[in-house]
Parts: sequence; structure tokens; C-alpha cells
Amino acid sequence: MSAEKERALPRIVVVGAGFGGLAFLRHFPAGLARITVVDRQNHHLFQPLLYQVATAGLSAVDIAQPIRAIFGSRPDFQVLMGEVTAIDLAARRVTHSRGELDFDYLVVAAGGKTSYFGHPEWEPFAPGLKSLDDALRIRRLILCSLERAETEPDAAKREAAMNIIVIGGGPTGVEVAGALAELTRTVLHRDFDHIDPAKVRVRLIEGNARLLSMFAPELSASAQRQLERLGVEVQTGVRVEAIRAGELVVAGQTIRADNIIWAAGVGAEAVARTLGVETDRAGKLKVLPDLSLPGHPTVFAIGDIVALTDARGTVVPGVAQGAMQMGRHVARLLERELRHSARPPAEREAFAYRDKGSMATIGRSAAVAEIGGRKLSGFPAWIAWLVIHLLFLVGFRNKFSVLLQWTYSYFTYKRGARIITGISGEKSAGSS
Amino acid sequence: MSAEKERALPRIVVVGAGFGGLAFLRHFPAGLARITVVDRQNHHLFQPLLYQVATAGLSAVDIAQPIRAIFGSRPDFQVLMGEVTAIDLAARRVTHSRGELDFDYLVVAAGGKTSYFGHPEWEPFAPGLKSLDDALRIRRLILCSLERAETEPDAAKREAAMNIIVIGGGPTGVEVAGALAELTRTVLHRDFDHIDPAKVRVRLIEGNARLLSMFAPELSASAQRQLERLGVEVQTGVRVEAIRAGELVVAGQTIRADNIIWAAGVGAEAVARTLGVETDRAGKLKVLPDLSLPGHPTVFAIGDIVALTDARGTVVPGVAQGAMQMGRHVARLLERELRHSARPPAEREAFAYRDKGSMATIGRSAAVAEIGGRKLSGFPAWIAWLVIHLLFLVGFRNKFSVLLQWTYSYFTYKRGARIITGISGEKSAGSS
Repeated sequence: MSAEKERALPRIVVVGAGFGGLAFLRHFPAGLARITVVDRQNHHLFQPLLYQVATAGLSAVDIAQPIRAIFGSRPDFQVLMGEVTAIDLAARRVTHSRGELDFDYLVVAAGGKTSYFGHPEWEPFAPGLKSLDDALRIRRLILCSLERAETEPDAAKREAAMNIIVIGGGPTGVEVAGALAELTRTVLHRDFDHIDPAKVRVRLIEGNARLLSMFAPELSASAQRQLERLGVEVQTGVRVEAIRAGELVVAGQTIRADNIIWAAGVGAEAVARTLGVETDRAGKLKVLPDLSLPGHPTVFAIGDIVALTDARGTVVPGVAQGAMQMGRHVARLLERELRHSARPPAEREAFAYRDKGSMATIGRSAAVAEIGGRKLSGFPAWIAWLVIHLLFLVGFRNKFSVLLQWTYSYFTYKRGARIITGISGEKSAGSS
Repeated sequence: MSAEKERALPRIVVVGAGFGGLAFLRHFPAGLARITVVDRQNHHLFQPLLYQVATAGLSAVDIAQPIRAIFGSRPDFQVLMGEVTAIDLAARRVTHSRGELDFDYLVVAAGGKTSYFGHPEWEPFAPGLKSLDDALRIRRLILCSLERAETEPDAAKREAAMNIIVIGGGPTGVEVAGALAELTRTVLHRDFDHIDPAKVRVRLIEGNARLLSMFAPELSASAQRQLERLGVEVQTGVRVEAIRAGELVVAGQTIRADNIIWAAGVGAEAVARTLGVETDRAGKLKVLPDLSLPGHPTVFAIGDIVALTDARGTVVPGVAQGAMQMGRHVARLLERELRHSARPPAEREAFAYRDKGSMATIGRSAAVAEIGGRKLSGFPAWIAWLVIHLLFLVGFRNKFSVLLQWTYSYFTYKRGARIITGISGEKSAGSS
């Protein structure tokens, strides 16, 4: 392509290289536009396996892929590492930590962030799980607590160090609680001299009447049974009233626990509010059926930053599938328009979510899944979970490495990633 | 063993679980003593491959092994994660961050730390490479600099972001410089749009007249040629005069560089000075030929914390081999004494270092090695280096994972660990 012709191409800016942004980029053909993707991280993160990094099953590098490496061969793509701080729809300009970007078309795929339901003061005491740094922080928290318990002479303090509370009974909370129960009961149980890691209490707290409320009730019940078999204490229908340093108030009762993990709420990234368009209570963007912003036909929002009930009346869930399908929808829609005319048509195809199923893993041979109306529990659900997560993991090296770690752990009952890093950084940052 | 008999056993405290401490623990038989090993990290680190974590070839978890996992099956061992702050030889007591330990026998194997030759003020601007956190910090520094260069409009600032200076031409400096030249020239060269990573300048600065001064002169010359073939600019016989933020003064000349890596000096861990015995200028302990401290026949020091010329007049080098041989020497010596009598004999066997060879890798098919008097260069040296490092890496999982990463990188010219983590921590810690 000549430099002149290239300059005449429309500019598309994609904010975020998560599942939504990546799906858009993959489905958008070469030669129709100049595309810039901007993300605050240098990597795409396979979020569904993040809990395994937090629980020492995988290393950070296994579930991340450098964005530049994914798109190195596309000359029409530009990758930028920077945090988007504001989007000006009138000026058609994105401001990020390193400069500004003008756009003709914009795809906002900045994702979600941990939300504390109006209690941001809880964050320092109950870390969430959205980034690699979050996962490494939780791993450090748990492993350091056990090291502290090993030398703690005071019984009450030792007990607090051996108390783990996971807040939120969605897939992340269920997976974290199950993995931590396995870690303490089958991996670490012979490692310590003065404490018995099998006595670590892992509690899972959910505000709804049942776990995994997006699944069928019998699968929720099955998940709870499978968790309890692993030693997790499950409490449903109770609300967290307060979180302080090493302390939690739930249903009027105060529990001392050094390890509190927040897996309860997902809100939208803060950049959503800078757009000056309507958002819901969680800060998520309201979009038209075609995924464009009302009044801005060349600006789209996809993934966790969006709150959407689709054309068929389905509330699109905040999962990888939802984001990926939205990304592909916008890519195809934009491709058609850029091929045929420069102007958006009066009526566009509406996005329709196709539910390909949900699954959550609990532990070794323990999971629940709902695929195409079929309900699976235990071993078959677990195998389905393994296969699908391996298939969708980005990068051959990652697939291979994760498969090996899993095989190794399955046969040896060991976890390779029990390595504490970042203690010095934590200290100087002043956070526990 | 009955609890009573166990209580009567002497207590051995081992400070540090590096190569020296680990070798002692492995060679000391069960049933003769109650042993406590205390380390500030929860893992043993395979330091010879640390530079590959810093240069995005391996992930942190690949070269570390939890200490508890190594010794989980030895009931006579106790593992403690804590930082030793002082050792009182008169009271026979070790003070660490979580409490105190009394001992009958002590093995000080606390290792070395980066030394700035009396210029501790250089540390914030020129990170060293001794721990996993150091390695991840250097990886972050280099990868973030290139990201910054990609969007930097100012030519001088862009150039500074693309300048890498490695100070110190020992094995670590040579390996880091070679690996960074390869990273920028063969791995990242197609990833960026506005900068050409192949134009990153990598300079290696050494105060001595030649690189790798512990090798034969022809190998030093070969190493320099191999480095220059990769694009590294080598400067020998020049001294660093000052290091400031993003700036280095060497041989009267000021160079602007955002990436300065310190691989020049190793001093002793600070705890050496709390012993109240004689140390050299670098703070290293002077020991008797049997590795005990003068006047303290039940206290030994081994590894990088020691400065020693052995019984045959050889200066024991600060490498894994030296520490491991010292650890084994003390284990055998203590075993004999504990089996036969409680009192140290008048004369003990002196430690003699057995040089099994030295090697340094430079890049793909590029290395130098001196093994049993034979001098190797290039491909054969590189293969020898690979085999020996794989053999000595602790843990089957680690060996297997590293072998795979290396095979993958060899055939694909990719490096899997180009993931930036810890940016948020860096920010709040206020460093760079």
C-alpha cells in the first residue's frame, strides 16, 4: 500500500486488549483502516485462569501474552502501552498517559474493575482479582500468612493468619475458594512444622441465596457440595457489613482473618465516566442494540464496560464469551460499512448474544458446567473445563506450558508456583 | 526417635538457603541434630539463570524452588522464613525478623549482595541482580523504556530510553549484555512501529583491562568478539565515576541512558558485620582453613559471605561451586564430630577448593568455557553451558520447564516472558 493511500484510511482506536478488544482486532480485516490499540498493560491476560496464578498453580507468564507479539505481523496495527485517562467524543480524541490519539472510529473495550459496592475503603484490606499484579499480591498474602502463623506464639493471631475468607460466590469466588482449600489440604499439608495447613479455614460468603446464580439451581447445589467436600465452609444469603484491617463483619458477627479476598463485584473502568454518556449504577455504559453509543454512531463499546440486554431480551453476562462476541459483531459491522460507504446506515444489525454455556471449576475432578442445555457436574464438567480453557488460551507456548503444569500437579499433588516475589516492593509501598 | 532423645540432640542453625546452605543441608545426615534453616525468601534461587528472568527468557517461577518443598520430607529440619538481623556469638543466639533462635552450631551462609564500591547512592539508578525481585525490576525497566521510546517525540529522550549500559564484565555482566542484545535484535525487532529495537545500544563497561578476568586471556578475547558480533559495544579499562538518574559518567564522559544495570560488585550480606569478627573491605568474613570463625570452633561461614584463600593458595571464587563445596565440607566435618565426640578436635581438615571449571554464556550458540584445563568457545561451550545448568537446576519441574522454554526460544526466536508486572507497585513505591 502506498504511504498516500494509507494516510487516507480511516483511523480506528481500540481502547483495551482484553477479550473484547482482541476479538475485534482478530476479526477486522487488513487494509481497511489504520488501527491503534492502547492498553495500560503490555500483555493480553487470560483472566479465566487468573485465580490459578493467585493460588500458586501457574506462573504469571503462563496466562499472559505480549500484545505486540500477538499483532507483530499486522502492519496496519499499532500497539501502544498507556493508560487512557479521558475520551472526548466531540473532539474525537483519546487522551492517554503518554499523549493523545485522534480517531474516526472508536472501540471502547476497557473492561471492568473490582467494585466494592460503594465502599472503596475496603479495597486495601480485601484485594480483588483483575490483573496479574492482583494475583501475585494474593499469592504473597496467603503464603506469607502461613509463614507468619508458623512462628506466631499467640493463638488468636495464629488463628487469624490461618483464616481465609473469600467474598462472592460467582465463578471467581468459587474457583479461588476451591483452589485455596486444595492448596492448603493437599499441597502444603506436610510442609510446616508448627502449624497444620489442613486446618486453615476457607470460608466462602455470598449475598445471594445460592452460589453461581447464573447456573441452574441443581448445579449451584452441586457446586456447594463439591466445595464442602474439599473443606470450604459456604455461607449464602449473608451480607458483608464492614471490612477493616484483618477483620470482617458479616451478618452482625465479627471475624478475625488476615486473608480476605474480594471476588464480589465488577464495575466499569473509570474511563467510562469521562465519555459524558449515560451509565448505570456500576458505571457501565448503556449502548444501542448495535453496540454504538447513543448519538455517536462511530463510537462502540464492548465487553465488561457495557451493560446490555440484547435484542432477544438476554442480559449479556460479563464473561469472555460476551466480550468476544461483541468484538466480532463490531468488527463485521465496521468492515461492511468501510467496504461499501463511509456513512453509517440508518439501521444496523443488532447484537444478539449466543450462550455457549457456562462453567466453573472447583478443584481436582470437581466442577460444574452447563453446555447447550446439558448440565454436567464433577469429573465430566472438570474435563470439559480443562479442554475449553486450554483451547482458548492465547499462544501455543502458553497452552503447552499450562498443560504441562496441570499434568505435573495432577500426578504429583504439587504446585510449582509457590514462590513469593515482591515483598520488598510491598514494604516500601506501605501496604501490608 | 523418642521426643526425649530428640531434645538432647544439638541444635544447628543454618542462615541462608542459597547454594552453600543447601549443600550443607543435603550432605548432613538425618538423626544427628535438630536443624533450623532460616532465609528471608521462601525459595531457593538458582542464581546462574537469574539474568534470563531479567531478560524475559524465563519466568521467575522456573528458577526458584520453595525451601519447604525441598526439605518437606526431613523431620529433623525446620524451615523459617525471616530476615536475620543479628548474630550474638557469645549468647549463641540468632535474631531474625520473627523472633530468636538458640544454637549449638551455626552455619552462616547468608550470601552476597550487590555492592556499589562505597557509592550506595548509585543503587536507585543502577539496579543490581541478586534476587527475583531485582530480575523482575530490570525486565520491567527495559520493556517499559522501549514502550516509552515508541511514543517519545523528543529525539534525545528517545535515544536515552534506547540506551542500555551494563556495568561489570564478569559472567553476570557478559550474560546480561549478550541476552539484551539478542532480545532487542532478534526477538523484539518487528514488534514496534516507530522505533527499531535493533538500534538499541547495549554497552558493556568493565574496569579491568579485559572481560571475564578469571578466564584465560584468549577466552576473554573470544567473549568480547562474540559479544561484538551480537552488537554489544564493549569498553574495558574504564572506571565509572558517577551515576545519577538516567545518566552515567565514565572516563570523563557523560552518557544519557535510562537503563543502567549494575553487575560489578558483590559484597557480603550486612549480617556479617553483626558477628563482631574480622571482615575484609567488602564486609566478607575471614575464616580459618576449616571454615570456622577464629575463636569460635562451632561457628562456620560458607559461600559468598566468606573471603578465603584455601589451603593450596587458591582464592575461592564467589560462584555456586565454591559455596557448594564449602557447604559439603562443613557437613562432613560436623557429621564426623557429632558421631564421635561432642568436642571439636585440636586440628580439623582444611577446606580445599576444587576448580571444576568456569563458563559464561553470551547468546545463541555463543559462550566461553574452561573445563579441566580445556578451553571451549562458541557452540561447544554453549552446549556444555546448557547441559550443566540444566543438570544443576533444583527440581524436576524446573528442569523440564526451562528445557522447554529454551527449546521453544531456540526454534521460534521468541521469548515467552516479555510480560511486565509490578508497575503499580513501582509507582506507589516511588522508584523510577
